[in-house]
Amino acid sequence: MKQNLPLEEAQAVLLNRITLPEDSKVPLMDALGRILSRDVVSRHNIPFFDRSPVDGYAALASDTVDAAPSQPVRLKVLEEIPAGYVAANKITSGTTVKVMTGAPLPEGTDVVVKYEEVERQGNYISVFEPLRYQENVVYAGEDVKVGEVVAKQGIVVSPALVGLLAGMGIAEVPVYQPVKVGILSTGDELISLGEALQPGKIYDSNRYTLQARCLDLGAQPVMLGTVMDCKEKVAARIREGLKQADVFITTGGVSVGDYDVIQDALRVLGAEIIFWKVDIKPGSPILAAVKDGKLIIGLSGNPVAALLTFDLLVVPMLKKMMGQKNYLYSKIQGKMAGGFKKSSEKRRFLRARLLLQDGDIAFQLTGIQNNSALKSMMECNVFVDVPAGSGPLNPGDVVSAHVLGNINSLDA
Amino acid sequence: MKQNLPLEEAQAVLLNRITLPEDSKVPLMDALGRILSRDVVSRHNIPFFDRSPVDGYAALASDTVDAAPSQPVRLKVLEEIPAGYVAANKITSGTTVKVMTGAPLPEGTDVVVKYEEVERQGNYISVFEPLRYQENVVYAGEDVKVGEVVAKQGIVVSPALVGLLAGMGIAEVPVYQPVKVGILSTGDELISLGEALQPGKIYDSNRYTLQARCLDLGAQPVMLGTVMDCKEKVAARIREGLKQADVFITTGGVSVGDYDVIQDALRVLGAEIIFWKVDIKPGSPILAAVKDGKLIIGLSGNPVAALLTFDLLVVPMLKKMMGQKNYLYSKIQGKMAGGFKKSSEKRRFLRARLLLQDGDIAFQLTGIQNNSALKSMMECNVFVDVPAGSGPLNPGDVVSAHVLGNINSLDA
Repeated sequence: MKQNLPLEEAQAVLLNRITLPEDSKVPLMDALGRILSRDVVSRHNIPFFDRSPVDGYAALASDTVDAAPSQPVRLKVLEEIPAGYVAANKITSGTTVKVMTGAPLPEGTDVVVKYEEVERQGNYISVFEPLRYQENVVYAGEDVKVGEVVAKQGIVVSPALVGLLAGMGIAEVPVYQPVKVGILSTGDELISLGEALQPGKIYDSNRYTLQARCLDLGAQPVMLGTVMDCKEKVAARIREGLKQADVFITTGGVSVGDYDVIQDALRVLGAEIIFWKVDIKPGSPILAAVKDGKLIIGLSGNPVAALLTFDLLVVPMLKKMMGQKNYLYSKIQGKMAGGFKKSSEKRRFLRARLLLQDGDIAFQLTGIQNNSALKSMMECNVFVDVPAGSGPLNPGDVVSAHVLGNINSLDA
Repeated sequence: MKQNLPLEEAQAVLLNRITLPEDSKVPLMDALGRILSRDVVSRHNIPFFDRSPVDGYAALASDTVDAAPSQPVRLKVLEEIPAGYVAANKITSGTTVKVMTGAPLPEGTDVVVKYEEVERQGNYISVFEPLRYQENVVYAGEDVKVGEVVAKQGIVVSPALVGLLAGMGIAEVPVYQPVKVGILSTGDELISLGEALQPGKIYDSNRYTLQARCLDLGAQPVMLGTVMDCKEKVAARIREGLKQADVFITTGGVSVGDYDVIQDALRVLGAEIIFWKVDIKPGSPILAAVKDGKLIIGLSGNPVAALLTFDLLVVPMLKKMMGQKNYLYSKIQGKMAGGFKKSSEKRRFLRARLLLQDGDIAFQLTGIQNNSALKSMMECNVFVDVPAGSGPLNPGDVVSAHVLGNINSLDA
């Protein structure tokens, strides 16, 4: 068992233990938010045919060369084609066909004159300006060509991709199975929602936070509840959970004290313990083990430490397990918007919010940074990565951060 | 009926027609991703009691003042308190109580000496260094105080908030009802997934894209399928949809041509048409109407125009309808990563991806920008806002953009 690993080494150890999940074809809408398990290749051109992007008249550019307001060109209207129907005629010199937006262009068409730019008298239109060759024409395959890879294995199926696949007539999509994540809270001090508060007890929050994060990620939480600090009971609950889950997360019982039962429970289970403790603050006492090829990760029972280390270490692992290509966090540099008074003997992660200050990327700490402050996770979308041996941080200091959240609410 | 409105005016017209939805209390986990309908006020301190953040020994700072490696201070261990249990003794000079992480501190405690920093012999420990007053003590209410507003009406319930609420013992959360969005595609050219391709026809993609976007937003899509370009049929389908939906979105049939049936259908319905056309490209032909107090928005049938205008104009409206406080997009400035050759007579929105170039925010166009290219929406997370009357854009030109997506996959 290794101890006190650097974060990146712990991450690598976990990522190397992963095998990709099974995949299956699911109906298009069920694929939303899931991960593509194969490249999607188009069997069609998109658009399927040369089409008009406007309401107007299909014509030949060469017919319009001499058109001028004082000397309009007259073209004979052969027929009218709504979207969804096909012309009976070809376009030849001196003729035109009225086409609605989205209609397939008659053979020979190389321009479309916009509806509002012609004058119509009976079966004739007048054109007042010359058109560029191919003006207002969308050619077959302009968006996607037959045989083109439109979406690569490992990407998340987004609303735009759903639309693109629908437009290609693809009703079923190959995606990976979602990962099932066992979640168990341990600790004699924990009571459950709905129970009355008693002296020395606290409401368990970790199981809800982790359940919610799993749902956000598209993983399937398997909820194992709360269990007392008793190695046999903890072992029994993990054993039960491993029957249903692909990976197992516990919180609590991984520290140095006499009541830290996860190691003992893992020994009862006969699991192989692969490391204990990661060299970061907060959340250092992380335990990783393997039983029957399935990873078991023990996180701190402290709510901030549990969520922070889940985000830092477990989320990339779950993303990789679900088949996602981009499973690691992006790192960005920015300036501290305010100061941070403590020195950092160990590598420390600060909860912060990315914002822009005069166009520069800045990180604003989200409230007090001690271990109990789950509130500080609420608006957090970056973790500022403070290297071991750093002194206090001053406003304007350039630091690096892991990007977690989204910037929909970025301050302008 | 107003015509050719600036985007912001059209947005304001829609936002002013909105009333907030009903709210109700739902079980905590059901609140994930929904919008808080009331401020949440804590009925407890968090932590509930003064607690130990480490495994160690509760003591008095004044007892440790003279401690040194050569002259350790000896304290008598009165008892041992696991997390979840309460001490029988107070701390007085010369005494200590062993406390596990999370345990409530005995009365009088003002420091906790870490487990690994003492030596224990029988019922005594030796302390080798003086401790600062309040060192390793977490006080009741340090994260949240009784009566404090922990989360404000109008915010999205995030995993961290779920955890915070659980920790306060809150089992039910007041949230707004999700908005029901009717979705209808119109056009003779549309065929449905599973149908065989025929000349001049295309697979409808808009209904799937908009359904997926609604699901992503936490709205409830009410799917009304596809209907031919016939005003009576379109009117009947909208009438049917309005019975179930709070707001209605159509695609197709809003342009200038003879087959553009949405206006006619709205007249059949007796809806009040409030504007037609927004002064942007792509997606200009947008129609907005009201029937029985419910908004009906007709978007272009072009897949890119439909999704872009849904994102630009409809999403902020839906967010406000769902009770979200931050419903408008953030705007940020950045540099064009590449060029864009066309001039923009009208105000134009370009699909792009936010990335960092040498620490600066840059916008990379996501493929070709013509109307048929739904592919360009796939990696798009910003819309670059090109003012009317702009010439071609060069790499490095500073532009403004609306931020849509997330930066989880931001390039470092």
